[in-house]
Amino acid sequence: MGTTQLESVPEPKYWHLKTVLTEALDSEFSVGEILPNERDLAARFGVARATLRQALEQLELEGRLQRRRGVGTTVAPPRVGVAVGAERHQWPGAAGDAWQPVDCASAAPPAAVADLLETDRDEQVHTVRRSRMTHGQPVAAELLYIPDSSVPDLSGIDSPSGAARARAVLRELQHLGLEGQDQSVELGSASAEDAKELDRLPGAPVLVVTTRYYAGGRTAAVSVATYRADTCRLTFGASGHVEIHHDPERRAS
Amino acid sequence: MGTTQLESVPEPKYWHLKTVLTEALDSEFSVGEILPNERDLAARFGVARATLRQALEQLELEGRLQRRRGVGTTVAPPRVGVAVGAERHQWPGAAGDAWQPVDCASAAPPAAVADLLETDRDEQVHTVRRSRMTHGQPVAAELLYIPDSSVPDLSGIDSPSGAARARAVLRELQHLGLEGQDQSVELGSASAEDAKELDRLPGAPVLVVTTRYYAGGRTAAVSVATYRADTCRLTFGASGHVEIHHDPERRAS
Repeated sequence: MGTTQLESVPEPKYWHLKTVLTEALDSEFSVGEILPNERDLAARFGVARATLRQALEQLELEGRLQRRRGVGTTVAPPRVGVAVGAERHQWPGAAGDAWQPVDCASAAPPAAVADLLETDRDEQVHTVRRSRMTHGQPVAAELLYIPDSSVPDLSGIDSPSGAARARAVLRELQHLGLEGQDQSVELGSASAEDAKELDRLPGAPVLVVTTRYYAGGRTAAVSVATYRADTCRLTFGASGHVEIHHDPERRAS
Repeated sequence: MGTTQLESVPEPKYWHLKTVLTEALDSEFSVGEILPNERDLAARFGVARATLRQALEQLELEGRLQRRRGVGTTVAPPRVGVAVGAERHQWPGAAGDAWQPVDCASAAPPAAVADLLETDRDEQVHTVRRSRMTHGQPVAAELLYIPDSSVPDLSGIDSPSGAARARAVLRELQHLGLEGQDQSVELGSASAEDAKELDRLPGAPVLVVTTRYYAGGRTAAVSVATYRADTCRLTFGASGHVEIHHDPERRAS
Protein backbone atom coordinates (compact mmCIF):
# COMPACT_ATOMS: atom_id res chain seq x y z
CA MET A 1 0.00 0.00 0.00
CA GLY A 2 1.50 3.34 -1.06
CA THR A 3 1.83 6.37 1.13
CA THR A 4 1.41 9.12 -1.45
CA GLN A 5 -0.13 12.28 -0.06
CA LEU A 6 -3.04 14.10 -1.64
CA GLU A 7 -1.95 17.24 -3.46
CA SER A 8 -1.21 19.92 -0.89
CA VAL A 9 -2.28 23.54 -1.25
CA PRO A 10 -0.75 26.47 0.61
CA GLU A 11 -3.13 27.49 3.39
CA PRO A 12 -3.71 31.01 4.69
CA LYS A 13 -2.31 31.90 8.10
CA TYR A 14 -5.63 31.87 9.96
CA TRP A 15 -6.31 28.42 8.58
CA HIS A 16 -3.14 27.03 10.09
CA LEU A 17 -4.07 28.78 13.35
CA LYS A 18 -7.51 27.16 13.17
CA THR A 19 -5.88 23.73 12.99
CA VAL A 20 -3.67 24.52 15.97
CA LEU A 21 -6.65 25.88 17.92
CA THR A 22 -8.69 22.78 17.10
CA GLU A 23 -5.96 20.61 18.61
CA ALA A 24 -5.86 22.84 21.69
CA LEU A 25 -9.65 22.57 22.05
CA ASP A 26 -9.40 18.77 21.83
CA SER A 27 -6.60 18.44 24.36
CA GLU A 28 -6.83 21.34 26.81
CA PHE A 29 -10.42 22.49 27.00
CA SER A 30 -13.65 20.82 27.97
CA VAL A 31 -17.17 21.47 26.69
CA GLY A 32 -18.67 24.67 28.09
CA GLU A 33 -15.32 26.10 29.17
CA ILE A 34 -14.80 29.81 28.51
CA LEU A 35 -11.85 30.65 26.25
CA PRO A 36 -9.22 33.21 27.32
CA ASN A 37 -9.81 36.68 25.90
CA GLU A 38 -8.68 37.54 22.37
CA ARG A 39 -5.63 39.52 23.48
CA ASP A 40 -4.27 36.62 25.56
CA LEU A 41 -5.03 34.07 22.85
CA ALA A 42 -3.37 36.18 20.14
CA ALA A 43 -0.29 36.55 22.33
CA ARG A 44 -0.13 32.83 23.11
CA PHE A 45 -0.22 31.82 19.45
CA GLY A 46 1.88 34.75 18.23
CA VAL A 47 -0.69 36.06 15.73
CA ALA A 48 -2.46 39.34 15.05
CA ARG A 49 -5.89 39.89 16.59
CA ALA A 50 -7.46 39.97 13.10
CA THR A 51 -5.99 36.54 12.25
CA LEU A 52 -7.23 35.16 15.56
CA ARG A 53 -10.72 36.50 14.94
CA GLN A 54 -10.86 34.89 11.49
CA ALA A 55 -9.91 31.53 12.98
CA LEU A 56 -12.50 31.89 15.78
CA GLU A 57 -15.20 32.72 13.23
CA GLN A 58 -14.34 29.57 11.27
CA LEU A 59 -14.51 27.44 14.40
CA GLU A 60 -17.89 28.97 15.23
CA LEU A 61 -19.12 28.14 11.69
CA GLU A 62 -17.95 24.56 12.19
CA GLY A 63 -19.78 24.29 15.49
CA ARG A 64 -16.67 24.00 17.68
CA LEU A 65 -17.14 27.33 19.47
CA GLN A 66 -20.17 29.27 20.64
CA ARG A 67 -20.33 33.00 21.21
CA ARG A 68 -23.00 33.80 23.70
CA ARG A 69 -24.22 37.22 24.72
CA GLY A 70 -22.89 38.15 28.15
CA VAL A 71 -20.87 34.94 28.47
CA GLY A 72 -18.07 35.10 25.90
CA THR A 73 -16.67 32.40 23.69
CA THR A 74 -17.15 28.88 24.99
CA VAL A 75 -16.28 25.40 23.75
CA ALA A 76 -19.41 24.01 22.07
CA PRO A 77 -20.78 20.55 22.80
CA PRO A 78 -20.82 18.13 19.84
CA ARG A 79 -23.62 18.87 17.40
CA VAL A 80 -26.86 17.09 18.10
CA GLY A 81 -28.07 14.69 15.40
CA VAL A 82 -31.65 15.62 14.51
CA ALA A 83 -33.57 13.11 12.41
CA VAL A 84 -35.13 14.83 9.41
CA GLY A 85 -35.73 12.27 6.68
CA ALA A 86 -38.75 10.13 7.56
CA GLU A 87 -38.56 6.36 7.19
CA ARG A 88 -42.26 6.28 6.47
CA HIS A 89 -44.16 9.09 4.83
CA GLN A 90 -46.60 10.74 7.14
CA TRP A 91 -48.37 14.05 7.52
CA PRO A 92 -47.15 16.61 10.01
CA GLY A 93 -48.99 16.07 13.27
CA ALA A 94 -49.19 12.27 12.89
CA ALA A 95 -48.43 10.10 15.93
CA GLY A 96 -44.79 10.38 17.02
CA ASP A 97 -44.23 13.74 15.36
CA ALA A 98 -41.36 15.60 17.09
CA TRP A 99 -42.92 19.04 16.51
CA GLN A 100 -45.14 21.06 18.85
CA PRO A 101 -47.84 23.30 17.36
CA VAL A 102 -47.54 26.88 18.62
CA ASP A 103 -49.86 29.04 16.58
CA CYS A 104 -52.02 29.20 13.48
CA ALA A 105 -52.91 32.11 11.22
CA SER A 106 -54.20 32.78 7.74
CA ALA A 107 -51.72 34.64 5.58
CA ALA A 108 -50.39 34.89 2.05
CA PRO A 109 -47.25 32.67 1.94
CA PRO A 110 -43.90 33.74 0.46
CA ALA A 111 -43.95 33.76 -3.36
CA ALA A 112 -41.77 30.62 -3.62
CA VAL A 113 -44.20 28.69 -1.40
CA ALA A 114 -47.25 29.94 -3.34
CA ASP A 115 -45.56 28.66 -6.50
CA LEU A 116 -45.04 25.20 -4.99
CA LEU A 117 -48.67 25.10 -3.80
CA GLU A 118 -49.88 26.51 -7.11
CA THR A 119 -52.01 29.05 -5.26
CA ASP A 120 -52.33 32.68 -6.30
CA ARG A 121 -49.66 34.81 -4.71
CA ASP A 122 -52.14 36.84 -2.67
CA GLU A 123 -54.26 33.83 -1.63
CA GLN A 124 -54.27 33.23 2.10
CA VAL A 125 -53.38 29.76 3.37
CA HIS A 126 -53.41 28.20 6.82
CA THR A 127 -50.01 28.93 8.31
CA VAL A 128 -49.16 26.71 11.26
CA ARG A 129 -46.13 27.63 13.34
CA ARG A 130 -44.46 24.77 15.18
CA SER A 131 -41.31 24.35 17.22
CA ARG A 132 -38.99 21.44 17.85
CA MET A 133 -37.00 20.84 21.01
CA THR A 134 -34.11 18.43 21.60
CA HIS A 135 -32.71 17.83 25.07
CA GLY A 136 -34.77 20.79 26.32
CA GLN A 137 -33.25 23.22 23.79
CA PRO A 138 -35.11 24.75 20.85
CA VAL A 139 -33.43 23.41 17.70
CA ALA A 140 -35.85 24.35 14.96
CA ALA A 141 -38.80 26.56 14.03
CA GLU A 142 -41.25 25.65 11.28
CA LEU A 143 -43.90 27.33 9.18
CA LEU A 144 -46.29 24.87 7.61
CA TYR A 145 -48.41 26.16 4.71
CA ILE A 146 -51.69 24.37 4.01
CA PRO A 147 -54.18 25.67 1.44
CA ASP A 148 -57.92 25.50 2.12
CA SER A 149 -58.29 22.87 -0.59
CA SER A 150 -56.21 20.40 1.48
CA VAL A 151 -58.45 20.74 4.56
CA PRO A 152 -61.90 21.33 2.99
CA ASP A 153 -63.89 20.24 6.04
CA LEU A 154 -62.13 22.60 8.39
CA SER A 155 -64.82 25.28 8.10
CA GLY A 156 -67.13 23.15 10.24
CA ILE A 157 -64.63 23.19 13.09
CA ASP A 158 -64.68 26.07 15.50
CA SER A 159 -61.27 26.10 17.16
CA PRO A 160 -60.65 29.70 18.06
CA SER A 161 -56.97 30.33 17.30
CA GLY A 162 -53.44 29.61 18.44
CA ALA A 163 -52.26 26.08 19.21
CA ALA A 164 -55.82 24.70 19.37
CA ARG A 165 -56.53 25.83 15.81
CA ALA A 166 -53.13 24.51 14.68
CA ARG A 167 -54.03 21.09 16.05
CA ALA A 168 -57.44 21.18 14.34
CA VAL A 169 -55.83 21.98 10.97
CA LEU A 170 -53.29 19.16 11.38
CA ARG A 171 -56.05 16.73 12.41
CA GLU A 172 -57.99 17.55 9.24
CA LEU A 173 -54.87 17.05 7.14
CA GLN A 174 -54.60 13.39 8.26
CA HIS A 175 -57.81 12.64 6.30
CA LEU A 176 -56.05 13.31 3.01
CA GLY A 177 -54.23 10.39 1.33
CA LEU A 178 -50.48 11.16 1.41
CA GLU A 179 -48.77 10.03 -1.79
CA GLY A 180 -45.22 11.02 -1.03
CA GLN A 181 -42.90 13.73 0.13
CA ASP A 182 -39.51 15.10 -0.74
CA GLN A 183 -37.09 17.41 0.96
CA SER A 184 -34.39 19.92 0.22
CA VAL A 185 -31.76 21.46 2.49
CA GLU A 186 -30.08 24.80 1.93
CA LEU A 187 -28.23 27.48 3.86
CA GLY A 188 -30.19 30.49 5.09
CA SER A 189 -30.15 33.16 7.76
CA ALA A 190 -32.51 33.38 10.72
CA SER A 191 -35.35 35.88 10.48
CA ALA A 192 -35.96 38.02 13.57
CA GLU A 193 -38.90 35.81 14.50
CA ASP A 194 -37.03 32.51 14.02
CA ALA A 195 -34.00 33.95 15.82
CA LYS A 196 -36.09 34.77 18.85
CA GLU A 197 -37.54 31.28 18.94
CA LEU A 198 -34.13 29.64 18.47
CA ASP A 199 -32.36 31.90 20.98
CA ARG A 200 -30.03 33.26 18.30
CA LEU A 201 -29.32 36.69 16.81
CA PRO A 202 -31.20 37.59 13.61
CA GLY A 203 -29.11 36.68 10.59
CA ALA A 204 -27.44 33.69 12.28
CA PRO A 205 -26.78 30.87 9.78
CA VAL A 206 -29.53 28.27 9.71
CA LEU A 207 -30.22 25.13 7.71
CA VAL A 208 -33.53 25.51 5.89
CA VAL A 209 -35.36 22.24 5.20
CA THR A 210 -38.24 22.53 2.72
CA THR A 211 -40.59 19.55 2.66
CA ARG A 212 -43.18 19.14 -0.03
CA TYR A 213 -46.11 16.82 0.69
CA TYR A 214 -47.95 15.30 -2.27
CA ALA A 215 -51.61 14.26 -2.36
CA GLY A 216 -54.06 13.98 -5.22
CA GLY A 217 -51.27 14.51 -7.76
CA ARG A 218 -50.32 17.94 -6.45
CA THR A 219 -48.47 19.63 -3.60
CA ALA A 220 -50.93 19.59 -0.70
CA ALA A 221 -48.73 21.21 1.95
CA VAL A 222 -45.28 22.79 2.25
CA SER A 223 -43.15 22.93 5.38
CA VAL A 224 -40.26 25.37 5.73
CA ALA A 225 -38.24 24.42 8.81
CA THR A 226 -35.30 26.41 10.10
CA TYR A 227 -32.68 24.49 12.11
CA ARG A 228 -29.87 26.05 14.15
CA ALA A 229 -26.76 25.46 12.05
CA ASP A 230 -24.42 25.83 15.00
CA THR A 231 -25.83 23.00 17.11
CA CYS A 232 -27.58 20.69 14.63
CA ARG A 233 -26.48 17.94 12.31
CA LEU A 234 -29.45 16.82 10.21
CA THR A 235 -29.65 13.07 9.78
CA PHE A 236 -31.37 11.30 6.91
CA GLY A 237 -31.52 7.69 7.99
CA ALA A 238 -32.55 5.56 5.05
CA SER A 239 -31.07 2.23 6.02
CA GLY A 240 -33.00 1.09 9.05
CA HIS A 241 -29.84 1.85 11.01
CA VAL A 242 -29.89 4.52 13.68
CA GLU A 243 -28.46 8.00 13.38
CA ILE A 244 -24.89 8.76 12.43
CA HIS A 245 -22.89 9.53 15.54
CA HIS A 246 -19.65 11.45 15.40
CA ASP A 247 -19.26 11.29 19.14
CA PRO A 248 -15.98 9.47 19.85
CA GLU A 249 -17.34 8.38 23.25
CA ARG A 250 -19.72 6.05 21.45
CA ARG A 251 -16.96 4.36 19.50
CA ALA A 252 -17.02 0.57 19.55
CA SER A 253 -13.73 -0.60 21.05
CA MET B 1 -61.39 32.14 7.81
CA GLY B 2 -59.66 34.57 10.16
CA THR B 3 -56.99 37.01 9.17
CA THR B 4 -54.95 37.10 12.38
CA GLN B 5 -51.27 37.80 11.86
CA LEU B 6 -48.47 35.76 13.37
CA GLU B 7 -46.89 37.51 16.33
CA SER B 8 -44.67 40.28 15.01
CA VAL B 9 -41.19 40.95 16.34
CA PRO B 10 -39.29 44.22 15.94
CA GLU B 11 -36.64 43.72 13.28
CA PRO B 12 -33.21 45.35 13.18
CA LYS B 13 -32.64 48.09 10.62
CA TYR B 14 -30.47 46.03 8.27
CA TRP B 15 -33.14 43.35 8.22
CA HIS B 16 -35.74 45.78 6.96
CA LEU B 17 -33.21 46.97 4.38
CA LYS B 18 -32.65 43.37 3.34
CA THR B 19 -36.37 42.99 2.65
CA VAL B 20 -36.41 46.20 0.60
CA LEU B 21 -33.30 45.09 -1.30
CA THR B 22 -34.85 41.69 -2.02
CA GLU B 23 -37.83 43.40 -3.60
CA ALA B 24 -35.51 45.59 -5.66
CA LEU B 25 -33.58 42.49 -6.81
CA ASP B 26 -36.83 40.85 -7.86
CA SER B 27 -38.17 43.82 -9.75
CA GLU B 28 -35.24 45.86 -11.07
CA PHE B 29 -32.27 43.53 -11.55
CA SER B 30 -31.67 40.45 -13.62
CA VAL B 31 -29.43 37.47 -12.89
CA GLY B 32 -25.73 38.26 -13.38
CA GLU B 33 -26.24 42.02 -13.23
CA ILE B 34 -23.64 43.96 -11.25
CA LEU B 35 -25.01 45.98 -8.32
CA PRO B 36 -24.17 49.70 -7.94
CA ASN B 37 -21.30 50.37 -5.56
CA GLU B 38 -21.87 50.49 -1.81
CA ARG B 39 -21.76 54.27 -1.56
CA ASP B 40 -24.47 54.73 -4.18
CA LEU B 41 -26.62 51.98 -2.72
CA ALA B 42 -26.32 53.38 0.82
CA ALA B 43 -27.33 56.81 -0.47
CA ARG B 44 -30.28 55.46 -2.43
CA PHE B 45 -31.74 53.65 0.58
CA GLY B 46 -30.73 56.31 3.10
CA VAL B 47 -28.72 53.98 5.35
CA ALA B 48 -25.21 53.86 6.76
CA ARG B 49 -22.58 51.86 4.87
CA ALA B 50 -22.31 49.42 7.81
CA THR B 51 -26.05 48.72 7.69
CA LEU B 52 -25.87 48.19 3.95
CA ARG B 53 -22.97 45.78 4.30
CA GLN B 54 -24.84 43.71 6.89
CA ALA B 55 -27.81 43.42 4.54
CA LEU B 56 -25.57 42.45 1.60
CA GLU B 57 -23.89 39.76 3.71
CA GLN B 58 -27.27 38.29 4.60
CA LEU B 59 -28.32 38.23 0.96
CA GLU B 60 -25.07 36.49 0.08
CA LEU B 61 -25.71 33.87 2.81
CA GLU B 62 -29.17 33.32 1.36
CA GLY B 63 -27.77 32.83 -2.13
CA ARG B 64 -29.33 35.98 -3.64
CA LEU B 65 -26.03 37.78 -4.24
CA GLN B 66 -22.56 36.64 -5.24
CA ARG B 67 -19.34 38.47 -4.52
CA ARG B 68 -16.75 37.56 -7.06
CA ARG B 69 -13.11 38.54 -7.08
CA GLY B 70 -12.46 41.24 -9.64
CA VAL B 71 -16.11 41.50 -10.65
CA GLY B 72 -18.01 42.93 -7.68
CA THR B 73 -21.40 42.02 -6.29
CA THR B 74 -23.75 40.41 -8.78
CA VAL B 75 -27.29 39.04 -8.67
CA ALA B 76 -27.00 35.27 -8.21
CA PRO B 77 -28.91 32.76 -10.33
CA PRO B 78 -31.39 30.57 -8.42
CA ARG B 79 -29.69 27.82 -6.46
CA VAL B 80 -29.24 24.57 -8.34
CA GLY B 81 -31.04 21.54 -6.91
CA VAL B 82 -28.48 18.75 -6.45
CA ALA B 83 -29.88 15.29 -5.75
CA VAL B 84 -28.20 13.80 -2.69
CA GLY B 85 -30.49 11.19 -1.17
CA ALA B 86 -30.43 8.04 -3.27
CA GLU B 87 -33.67 6.30 -4.18
CA ARG B 88 -31.84 2.99 -4.27
CA HIS B 89 -28.83 2.19 -2.15
CA GLN B 90 -25.70 1.75 -4.18
CA TRP B 91 -21.97 1.96 -3.72
CA PRO B 92 -20.06 5.01 -4.91
CA GLY B 93 -18.89 4.37 -8.45
CA ALA B 94 -21.94 2.30 -9.44
CA ALA B 95 -23.54 2.95 -12.83
CA GLY B 96 -25.08 6.42 -13.05
CA ASP B 97 -22.98 7.90 -10.26
CA ALA B 98 -22.68 11.68 -10.68
CA TRP B 99 -19.15 11.82 -9.26
CA GLN B 100 -15.85 11.73 -11.14
CA PRO B 101 -12.83 10.06 -9.51
CA VAL B 102 -9.83 12.42 -9.37
CA ASP B 103 -7.19 10.82 -7.20
CA CYS B 104 -6.47 8.07 -4.70
CA ALA B 105 -4.05 7.94 -1.80
CA SER B 106 -3.47 6.00 1.40
CA ALA B 107 -3.71 8.13 4.50
CA ALA B 108 -4.92 8.14 8.09
CA PRO B 109 -8.44 9.63 8.01
CA PRO B 110 -9.70 12.37 10.37
CA ALA B 111 -10.38 11.04 13.88
CA ALA B 112 -14.18 11.27 13.45
CA VAL B 113 -14.01 9.13 10.28
CA ALA B 114 -11.71 6.56 11.93
CA ASP B 115 -14.27 6.29 14.73
CA LEU B 116 -17.09 5.60 12.24
CA LEU B 117 -14.96 3.00 10.43
CA GLU B 118 -13.79 1.54 13.74
CA THR B 119 -10.21 1.62 12.51
CA ASP B 120 -7.28 2.68 14.66
CA ARG B 121 -6.67 6.40 14.45
CA ASP B 122 -3.27 6.00 12.79
CA GLU B 123 -4.38 3.24 10.40
CA GLN B 124 -4.17 4.22 6.75
CA VAL B 125 -7.23 3.76 4.55
CA HIS B 126 -7.81 4.19 0.82
CA THR B 127 -8.77 7.82 0.34
CA VAL B 128 -10.50 8.51 -2.96
CA ARG B 129 -11.00 12.11 -4.00
CA ARG B 130 -13.89 12.77 -6.36
CA SER B 131 -15.56 15.84 -7.78
CA ARG B 132 -19.07 16.61 -8.92
CA MET B 133 -20.07 19.03 -11.66
CA THR B 134 -23.50 20.45 -12.47
CA HIS B 135 -24.09 22.50 -15.61
CA GLY B 136 -20.30 22.62 -16.13
CA GLN B 137 -19.65 24.14 -12.70
CA PRO B 138 -17.93 22.34 -9.81
CA VAL B 139 -20.55 22.01 -7.06
CA ALA B 140 -18.98 19.53 -4.67
CA ALA B 141 -15.73 17.84 -3.63
CA GLU B 142 -15.66 14.47 -1.87
CA LEU B 143 -13.25 12.38 0.14
CA LEU B 144 -14.26 8.74 0.30
CA TYR B 145 -12.61 6.62 3.01
CA ILE B 146 -12.41 2.86 2.43
CA PRO B 147 -10.49 0.56 4.77
CA ASP B 148 -8.44 -2.36 3.38
CA SER B 149 -10.91 -4.81 4.91
CA SER B 150 -13.67 -3.55 2.55
CA VAL B 151 -11.57 -4.17 -0.59
CA PRO B 152 -9.52 -7.26 0.42
CA ASP B 153 -8.75 -8.37 -3.14
CA LEU B 154 -7.32 -5.02 -4.18
CA SER B 155 -3.72 -6.08 -3.51
CA GLY B 156 -3.77 -8.22 -6.66
CA ILE B 157 -4.57 -5.18 -8.76
CA ASP B 158 -1.73 -3.07 -10.01
CA SER B 159 -3.26 0.30 -10.88
CA PRO B 160 -0.49 2.80 -10.34
CA SER B 161 -2.13 5.86 -8.75
CA GLY B 162 -4.41 8.80 -9.40
CA ALA B 163 -7.79 8.38 -11.09
CA ALA B 164 -6.95 4.87 -12.38
CA ARG B 165 -6.31 3.61 -8.87
CA ALA B 166 -9.45 5.38 -7.61
CA ARG B 167 -11.51 3.54 -10.22
CA ALA B 168 -9.90 0.20 -9.26
CA VAL B 169 -10.77 0.74 -5.58
CA LEU B 170 -14.38 1.64 -6.44
CA ARG B 171 -14.66 -1.39 -8.73
CA GLU B 172 -13.53 -3.68 -5.91
CA LEU B 173 -16.04 -2.08 -3.57
CA GLN B 174 -18.97 -3.18 -5.79
CA HIS B 175 -18.20 -6.83 -4.86
CA LEU B 176 -19.23 -6.20 -1.27
CA GLY B 177 -22.94 -6.64 -0.38
CA LEU B 178 -24.33 -3.20 0.52
CA GLU B 179 -26.80 -3.41 3.39
CA GLY B 180 -27.78 0.21 3.69
CA GLN B 181 -26.62 3.77 4.00
CA ASP B 182 -27.52 6.88 5.91
CA GLN B 183 -26.62 10.51 5.59
CA SER B 184 -26.20 13.63 7.65
CA VAL B 185 -25.95 17.27 6.59
CA GLU B 186 -24.25 20.00 8.56
CA LEU B 187 -22.71 23.43 8.07
CA GLY B 188 -18.95 23.64 7.60
CA SER B 189 -16.29 25.84 6.06
CA ALA B 190 -14.25 25.04 2.97
CA SER B 191 -10.70 23.81 3.50
CA ALA B 192 -8.04 25.36 1.27
CA GLU B 193 -8.06 22.24 -0.89
CA ASP B 194 -11.85 22.07 -1.23
CA ALA B 195 -12.00 25.83 -1.82
CA LYS B 196 -9.60 25.55 -4.73
CA GLU B 197 -11.65 22.77 -6.28
CA LEU B 198 -14.94 24.64 -5.75
CA ASP B 199 -13.58 28.00 -6.94
CA ARG B 200 -14.27 29.60 -3.56
CA LEU B 201 -12.15 31.27 -0.89
CA PRO B 202 -10.98 29.06 2.00
CA GLY B 203 -13.46 29.32 4.86
CA ALA B 204 -16.48 29.86 2.60
CA PRO B 205 -19.60 28.23 4.05
CA VAL B 206 -20.24 24.74 2.71
CA LEU B 207 -22.81 22.02 3.33
CA VAL B 208 -21.04 18.88 4.51
CA VAL B 209 -22.83 15.63 3.68
CA THR B 210 -21.50 12.57 5.50
CA THR B 211 -22.66 9.23 4.10
CA ARG B 212 -22.09 6.01 5.95
CA TYR B 213 -22.25 2.77 3.94
CA TYR B 214 -23.05 -0.45 5.79
CA ALA B 215 -21.91 -3.95 4.83
CA GLY B 216 -21.36 -7.07 6.90
CA GLY B 217 -22.92 -5.41 9.95
CA ARG B 218 -20.40 -2.60 10.09
CA THR B 219 -19.48 0.68 8.40
CA ALA B 220 -17.63 -0.36 5.24
CA ALA B 221 -16.99 3.11 3.79
CA VAL B 222 -17.53 6.77 4.71
CA SER B 223 -17.98 9.64 2.29
CA VAL B 224 -17.50 13.26 3.34
CA ALA B 225 -18.79 15.52 0.55
CA THR B 226 -18.52 19.30 0.61
CA TYR B 227 -21.14 21.22 -1.40
CA ARG B 228 -21.01 24.93 -2.20
CA ALA B 229 -23.59 26.48 0.12
CA ASP B 230 -24.01 29.59 -2.03
CA THR B 231 -25.15 27.85 -5.20
CA CYS B 232 -26.54 24.48 -4.04
CA ARG B 233 -29.82 23.29 -2.64
CA LEU B 234 -29.52 19.64 -1.66
CA THR B 235 -32.55 17.58 -2.58
CA PHE B 236 -33.59 14.37 -0.87
CA GLY B 237 -36.26 12.93 -3.12
CA ALA B 238 -37.99 10.07 -1.34
CA SER B 239 -41.33 10.05 -3.08
CA GLY B 240 -40.64 8.98 -6.62
CA HIS B 241 -41.36 12.58 -7.58
CA VAL B 242 -38.64 14.66 -9.13
CA GLU B 243 -36.65 17.36 -7.43
CA ILE B 244 -38.15 20.32 -5.63
CA HIS B 245 -38.08 23.36 -7.86
CA HIS B 246 -38.31 26.85 -6.46
CA ASP B 247 -38.00 28.38 -9.88
CA PRO B 248 -41.15 30.45 -10.49
CA GLU B 249 -40.72 30.00 -14.24
CA ARG B 250 -41.67 26.36 -13.83
CA ARG B 251 -44.89 27.17 -12.05
CA ALA B 252 -47.96 25.43 -13.42
CA SER B 253 -50.47 28.08 -14.45
